[in-house]
Amino acid sequence: MLKRYLPILSWLPHYRRETFSHDLIAGLIVTVMVIPQSLAYALLAGLPAVMGLYASILPAIVYMVFGSSRTLAVGPVAIIALMTASSLSAIAAPGSTDYVQAALMLSLLSGLMLTIMGFLRLGFFANFLSHPVISGFLSASGLLIATSQASHLLGIGVSGYTLPTLLSGLFTHLSELHPLTLGISVFTLAFLLLMRRHGRSSLKRIGMPAKLADLIAKAGPVFAVVLTTAATWLFDWESAGVAVVGDVPGGLPPLTLPGLDPTLWGQLWVPALLISIVGFVESVSMGQMLAAKRRERILPDQELLGLGTANLASAFTGGMPVTGGLSRTVINFDAGARTPAAGLIAALGIGVVTLFFTPLIHFLPIATLAATITVSILTLVDIPAMRRTWRYSRSDFAALLATLLLTLLEGVEAGIIAGVALSIGLFLYRTSRPHSALVGRVPGTEHFRNVARHDVESHAQIALLRIDESLYFANARYLEDTLYALVAERPELTDVVLICSAVNLIDASALESLEAINARLRDSGVTLHLAEVKGPVMDRLKHSDFLDTLTGRVFLSTYGAWSELRPRHAARASIQPLE
Amino acid sequence: MLKRYLPILSWLPHYRRETFSHDLIAGLIVTVMVIPQSLAYALLAGLPAVMGLYASILPAIVYMVFGSSRTLAVGPVAIIALMTASSLSAIAAPGSTDYVQAALMLSLLSGLMLTIMGFLRLGFFANFLSHPVISGFLSASGLLIATSQASHLLGIGVSGYTLPTLLSGLFTHLSELHPLTLGISVFTLAFLLLMRRHGRSSLKRIGMPAKLADLIAKAGPVFAVVLTTAATWLFDWESAGVAVVGDVPGGLPPLTLPGLDPTLWGQLWVPALLISIVGFVESVSMGQMLAAKRRERILPDQELLGLGTANLASAFTGGMPVTGGLSRTVINFDAGARTPAAGLIAALGIGVVTLFFTPLIHFLPIATLAATITVSILTLVDIPAMRRTWRYSRSDFAALLATLLLTLLEGVEAGIIAGVALSIGLFLYRTSRPHSALVGRVPGTEHFRNVARHDVESHAQIALLRIDESLYFANARYLEDTLYALVAERPELTDVVLICSAVNLIDASALESLEAINARLRDSGVTLHLAEVKGPVMDRLKHSDFLDTLTGRVFLSTYGAWSELRPRHAARASIQPLE
Repeated sequence: MLKRYLPILSWLPHYRRETFSHDLIAGLIVTVMVIPQSLAYALLAGLPAVMGLYASILPAIVYMVFGSSRTLAVGPVAIIALMTASSLSAIAAPGSTDYVQAALMLSLLSGLMLTIMGFLRLGFFANFLSHPVISGFLSASGLLIATSQASHLLGIGVSGYTLPTLLSGLFTHLSELHPLTLGISVFTLAFLLLMRRHGRSSLKRIGMPAKLADLIAKAGPVFAVVLTTAATWLFDWESAGVAVVGDVPGGLPPLTLPGLDPTLWGQLWVPALLISIVGFVESVSMGQMLAAKRRERILPDQELLGLGTANLASAFTGGMPVTGGLSRTVINFDAGARTPAAGLIAALGIGVVTLFFTPLIHFLPIATLAATITVSILTLVDIPAMRRTWRYSRSDFAALLATLLLTLLEGVEAGIIAGVALSIGLFLYRTSRPHSALVGRVPGTEHFRNVARHDVESHAQIALLRIDESLYFANARYLEDTLYALVAERPELTDVVLICSAVNLIDASALESLEAINARLRDSGVTLHLAEVKGPVMDRLKHSDFLDTLTGRVFLSTYGAWSELRPRHAARASIQPLE
Repeated sequence: MLKRYLPILSWLPHYRRETFSHDLIAGLIVTVMVIPQSLAYALLAGLPAVMGLYASILPAIVYMVFGSSRTLAVGPVAIIALMTASSLSAIAAPGSTDYVQAALMLSLLSGLMLTIMGFLRLGFFANFLSHPVISGFLSASGLLIATSQASHLLGIGVSGYTLPTLLSGLFTHLSELHPLTLGISVFTLAFLLLMRRHGRSSLKRIGMPAKLADLIAKAGPVFAVVLTTAATWLFDWESAGVAVVGDVPGGLPPLTLPGLDPTLWGQLWVPALLISIVGFVESVSMGQMLAAKRRERILPDQELLGLGTANLASAFTGGMPVTGGLSRTVINFDAGARTPAAGLIAALGIGVVTLFFTPLIHFLPIATLAATITVSILTLVDIPAMRRTWRYSRSDFAALLATLLLTLLEGVEAGIIAGVALSIGLFLYRTSRPHSALVGRVPGTEHFRNVARHDVESHAQIALLRIDESLYFANARYLEDTLYALVAERPELTDVVLICSAVNLIDASALESLEAINARLRDSGVTLHLAEVKGPVMDRLKHSDFLDTLTGRVFLSTYGAWSELRPRHAARASIQPLE
């Protein structure tokens, strides 16, 4: 029981020294790599840079205790930072005390929601975000983030959370472009792209071991940060107008108490819910992918607890909403982390940096951070996935496109809500007009196939109708229409057999429709039979009066119905021609 | 084409004199019967009584032209009146000019929405209201209306649209009870209930023909209205404090132009949508029930046009939102209406009353109207249906109960929205954890059954998994979990066959999951096969790369897979014991 809620107990007691050396190296690498990222995402969220560091310390440690993934690295991530900024901008001015307070509240609410969902085992909620919706949302968010970073790259101040406001802001203020900032941006972008494309192979070519070359290539952002910070300090670019991170207070994360203002709760619960679900989905998808590589499993409901407590920790230590981050997790994984202890070491490392080394961050240009975000975020725009979805299913693509466009034009909240609504709506629409087929017997066998597609035996007075969907409220009326039309078209019918091999559920609405169909067919002198009713469906029907009023029988198989009904008609009306 | 949009053309050209005599009698009966009702529902909606009459004239005529039901009588109905009052009370004071203006706007918006939905053939939207939700909503609305009428029955002024406000209002003002009003109420209630329970049999016992006895028993409200109005006039009860309908302006319905205030549109579109859908569902269910009795059919999409234009007509002639009314339709049907011409005659009759006889209405006590509403509305509270639903399905009952309680406690809008959301949520939850079964061969046959329930042949290295649900985003992850757990539990597995006989759809999310499953099983040395993939699903799969990367084969039947895979293992590892 304790082990179930505290996954740490499943590995900590068996922890060995050799595992520690792997984790130590991975932890130190992660420390260095995620510092620029954490600062950048805090700024993206409109918060002081140091909150990104705070959010990478205690939340990561808490996740280690409660989370079920062994390699997931928890901290600020780009999408969640964007969603945070977008929802807080409606409430307070970025950077103000109210804004910071609201960010803490957002972490608190999100933490509470995730934790409660974890205890209620509601991990399946994440399933309502279909892949096309996630794909469209991530692509659009990537574009939005890249566009918002463009203003930092150009050295002009523009803010907004939809593509039209961002673009019009950029064009209006284009004259304020700051050439030196642009220079830093171009250098950093070029450096990062070169390192990413050719760093590994070039380093290997000059004789470096593959693993080290890989690591150094991935550390591109760190080098870019060090180089541009040093240059800014040396040449005093700050007085030349290059925006820098500026003074970052040193010391351990403060103990913060999010306020309890009910108005704020009312304004923030929807964004908090969306942030929780998006963060959970992002984190779990990644966790599953990595666990699969190592033949491990993650437990979605436990992940809710891990992420929930991490967000609570963030709310009380001056942080921002967090989740499992793609890039920081990949770094952790590639650096050879074996257990969550690597996350602990990274968290302690960031703690040490926050305590002693924040003055070094002062001269870090904002443009450098914007460049690192831009390069990493554009991988979210997944054109091949869009093309695959278009080829496979137009309606799934419609959900993807609607999410993409609405996110770009109306913002992240509208996009994700519309995407979910559309996914559900399309599914209901598809199932509301179920495929059905009149079937006949393949001569000489017990198999029954669609009369329209196959050369099969059928009978003018018996209709064998196979219905290819569960019967529930959205298609109950359609079922009635189908059967009434069938009976109206074929006045000679005496028996209708409803083949339920694909019916996994009959809900109360469909039951009422079946009762109505049964009564109406009876009035027309047609007997209604069922065939191939599944066990669970039959058990349920026994709790109603339907089986008592059913005019016909419930046959175990279609063949059973055929062999029973066919001779009866043959005897009664042997002159009746076959169809 | 013209006939499709103008159902009137399908019966008017064949109209015969003998049909007319039936329709004339039915029309005159309906005229007399629906006048008290129309007044009462206008008052229930918080509007001047005369608006109920206006809404029974032109809308009924327009419906006759565009509607597809031959017996449906269109006009103000109780539920829609309650929803109108509830949504308008947030905007203006009942009875004020703004309130009346908003009611016209509500009719206009509802008319536009229904008409547009009709042209777009969106009648299937109504399917999203499941039967349990409708049942819960109607019962709760009936209770709400009865409670709101209680204040008129007692002669005290209380308003509100939720049970707590209504009840607390009643108790607070109980001291203001008006004894004479209560007397009128008790008399009317007793009279109506006696007429309903025993009127028909008593009249027949004194020798009256059955049909006439039936009609007179049904006309109870008319007699009650005449008696109490006459008494109020004779004894001048108005000056004794009995609330009466008062002066009703005579003359034909005025031509009204609903305003075009965009703020009002913004406030009213959600209520208008809900009113449209609820009205449509109520009207169509009734229309279908009656059509079935006469072997006629109604066309839901055409009904949208009929109801939509009727509401537009109401908006422009001083009326209120209308739909097909249960009691007025039953009266029409029982009185022997053959064609919509009966509705025309009733409409003309009400027009004549409105022109010349409104002074007669002055002394009609509000308490009498409240008593007629109360008696007719309590039939909406359908306890047996609730009991049936509870027996059949706990989750359907949960939807019913949630709708009922939320409607009572939070009002009609919250109730209906929550009910729809819950119906959809429950369906998605059910399908998100699909039933699946490992199957084996029934010895000597080609049939495969659940290994847990039947004594069947199986094989340690081959898993035949039948999945009993369409594969889509809500259960894609669950499918992955199921298969990974299966492979983890049985390390000796070499082949997994996914039997898709109940899979009617594989959406893009599920396709990605299948691809992930295929890749992961391949890494574990397990081959994935499919069997019994339906035609439409297979067609779709051919538009993706999945079939190219699938490690195994797609078998036409489970037996085919078994006969192919079984001997291969028998040959390769003949010492392997069977399960």
